[in-house]
Amino acid sequence: MTYLQGGDGLKRREFLATAGLAAAGLAACSKPAAEPKPQAPGAAARKTYEWKMATSWPPGFPVFQTGMEQFAARVKEMSGGRLSIRVYAGGELIPPLEVFDAISAGTVEMGHSASYYWAGKAPELQLFTTSPFGLTAQQFNAWFYHGGGLELMHEMYKPYNIITFPSCNTGVQMGGWFNRKIERIEDFNGLKMRIPGLGGRVVAKAGVNVVLMAAGELYTALERGTIDALEWVGPYHDLKLGFYRAAKYYYYPGWHEPGTMLELMVNLKAWESLPKDLQMIVEAAAAQSNLLGLAEFDAKNGEALNELVNTYKAQVLKFPDEVLKTLHGYAREVLEEEAAKSPGQRKVYDAFRAFAGRVEPWTRMSERAFMEAKGL
Amino acid sequence: MTYLQGGDGLKRREFLATAGLAAAGLAACSKPAAEPKPQAPGAAARKTYEWKMATSWPPGFPVFQTGMEQFAARVKEMSGGRLSIRVYAGGELIPPLEVFDAISAGTVEMGHSASYYWAGKAPELQLFTTSPFGLTAQQFNAWFYHGGGLELMHEMYKPYNIITFPSCNTGVQMGGWFNRKIERIEDFNGLKMRIPGLGGRVVAKAGVNVVLMAAGELYTALERGTIDALEWVGPYHDLKLGFYRAAKYYYYPGWHEPGTMLELMVNLKAWESLPKDLQMIVEAAAAQSNLLGLAEFDAKNGEALNELVNTYKAQVLKFPDEVLKTLHGYAREVLEEEAAKSPGQRKVYDAFRAFAGRVEPWTRMSERAFMEAKGL
Repeated sequence: MTYLQGGDGLKRREFLATAGLAAAGLAACSKPAAEPKPQAPGAAARKTYEWKMATSWPPGFPVFQTGMEQFAARVKEMSGGRLSIRVYAGGELIPPLEVFDAISAGTVEMGHSASYYWAGKAPELQLFTTSPFGLTAQQFNAWFYHGGGLELMHEMYKPYNIITFPSCNTGVQMGGWFNRKIERIEDFNGLKMRIPGLGGRVVAKAGVNVVLMAAGELYTALERGTIDALEWVGPYHDLKLGFYRAAKYYYYPGWHEPGTMLELMVNLKAWESLPKDLQMIVEAAAAQSNLLGLAEFDAKNGEALNELVNTYKAQVLKFPDEVLKTLHGYAREVLEEEAAKSPGQRKVYDAFRAFAGRVEPWTRMSERAFMEAKGL
Repeated sequence: MTYLQGGDGLKRREFLATAGLAAAGLAACSKPAAEPKPQAPGAAARKTYEWKMATSWPPGFPVFQTGMEQFAARVKEMSGGRLSIRVYAGGELIPPLEVFDAISAGTVEMGHSASYYWAGKAPELQLFTTSPFGLTAQQFNAWFYHGGGLELMHEMYKPYNIITFPSCNTGVQMGGWFNRKIERIEDFNGLKMRIPGLGGRVVAKAGVNVVLMAAGELYTALERGTIDALEWVGPYHDLKLGFYRAAKYYYYPGWHEPGTMLELMVNLKAWESLPKDLQMIVEAAAAQSNLLGLAEFDAKNGEALNELVNTYKAQVLKFPDEVLKTLHGYAREVLEEEAAKSPGQRKVYDAFRAFAGRVEPWTRMSERAFMEAKGL
């Protein structure tokens, strides 16, 4: 999944959002508002903050954008109105893929996005989102919260004046929609596929002609044969975009994005200006969003998958084992090539790989063995 | 380790806490204390609450008890000291398995335990903890937060004057320590095993002589041959209890507890007395504990497993497929027998099973297929 937007819907909503701001007479200030009763005891602890969050998602984009609207509502409620966050979709205030720069510069206090979008300018951050044949959501959480991952992410983001927190995970995505059957690795050769990031680098090794295009163009490109295949997210989001009408085969598993973590980004100075209790509220609400986001994906993907298969007769196919094995080999090469590019990339990759080596034997004996025992 | 710094430490800490409260002019009562400046705007929202939590865990019990101490610290910080929860281990205030009654009666406001402990008096609640061949932690979260599970749990607990929230998950446990190899289902026949709850009911169908005993007696019973086998939690906890010195074989997977959910319990009237912002803080902190608990298990089980295998040479074995298949069949029988016992049990089981039927095909295509592709 990556997101590049398009659509008139966005422009209309952009207008409405802007008009709404003006009508409500709200000052779009980024500084803490004045405390109404500064002499009262505990006044410092009752300052109010009016913050802005810019995301990389389309307006109303399920789970991603709606999850952050719920996050903002919870933070406001938990803080008794002291921290109020106005959430803007991609393009409403900041272009979707410029969120990083806006937060780094302090133009907005908060953002919601994925670190692999900044791979061009900060490649050492990309593994914090996901990686081909990387960790599942559950393993990723173990790394972040009890394996040093969060501390490392904070350290690597610090030079950019940003602090981030895990705040959603898609779980294992789907492998994508194909108009050609994939029966052996050679079937990737010459295929025109929209698959960005490291996943794209992996299939390029198998001869795929990797195409990048905006989300709004995907359906038409697939339908007209401009591309032969694409990957997006999972059944819930893919059903909404109607890809089942434009492609015959829906492949799994999404080896290229096995647990995509979206992050709450906060300008570091803004973060440090918050009193401890509000910091703790933001951290707890982000963790809650992380948990609830994955739960929503699992619940809704199950329902959407059922609809895709039974109502729309999508042909759901598994990539052959030999194909997956070959892609796994290519993925290791791509990750090693990336790690060799800078000390930062090496540091994150080595930490990530060391943790994977510790957690994987346990996953094999617990989740994996249980699923097998149950016949899943 | 006992609670806090040990017996004397507890008393000293209790004293200091009381002294501190007195100095601050706050009453250490369980009812909302009076607001010092009742005329100030927002005074009602700044009442303070001094609550007690009774758990079913030994003092200092990792993840379970320590997780709740962290929960209480976070709630106190997030609420700016307005909700202060003193956490008592099992037996310090309330016997471990009487937590349900104490919360129901309002003797304490909060508790931390597992619903399957009350199966004798409220059997309709037991499936909210886990069930043999039931849901994994990730699937269980999907049910609770986006599949109606939480609402159903609230409905079923309401007659007991209790509201509960998921607040930890062990993930898939281990199958247990055995002094006899399990090569076919007949090897369970006549085995003396400590395995409580529905899991015990399942192996009883295979001829196991199910034994119940307190945690403190387990090691000696296994070493002396009073029992042939036992199940406890997973590598992290099992390593601490030293079972590897008393049994030869460590079996996986823990088919009987594939995602044990521990719950934060709150007396319903106490809950309703909280202002909305404190309710939201408690809910967020519980969700955070749910996420962090599983992350801690995954990170620490991986390390402990490594130590058990490489340092202590534990023989880790997988239950044979045929054995698991037979146990799965027995588990279905046990769950059906339970569901037939009362309308409440039927209702929970049917809702649980319907959700499982929706989420499982998705798990098969996502987490399961990915783990297989990666060779886990």
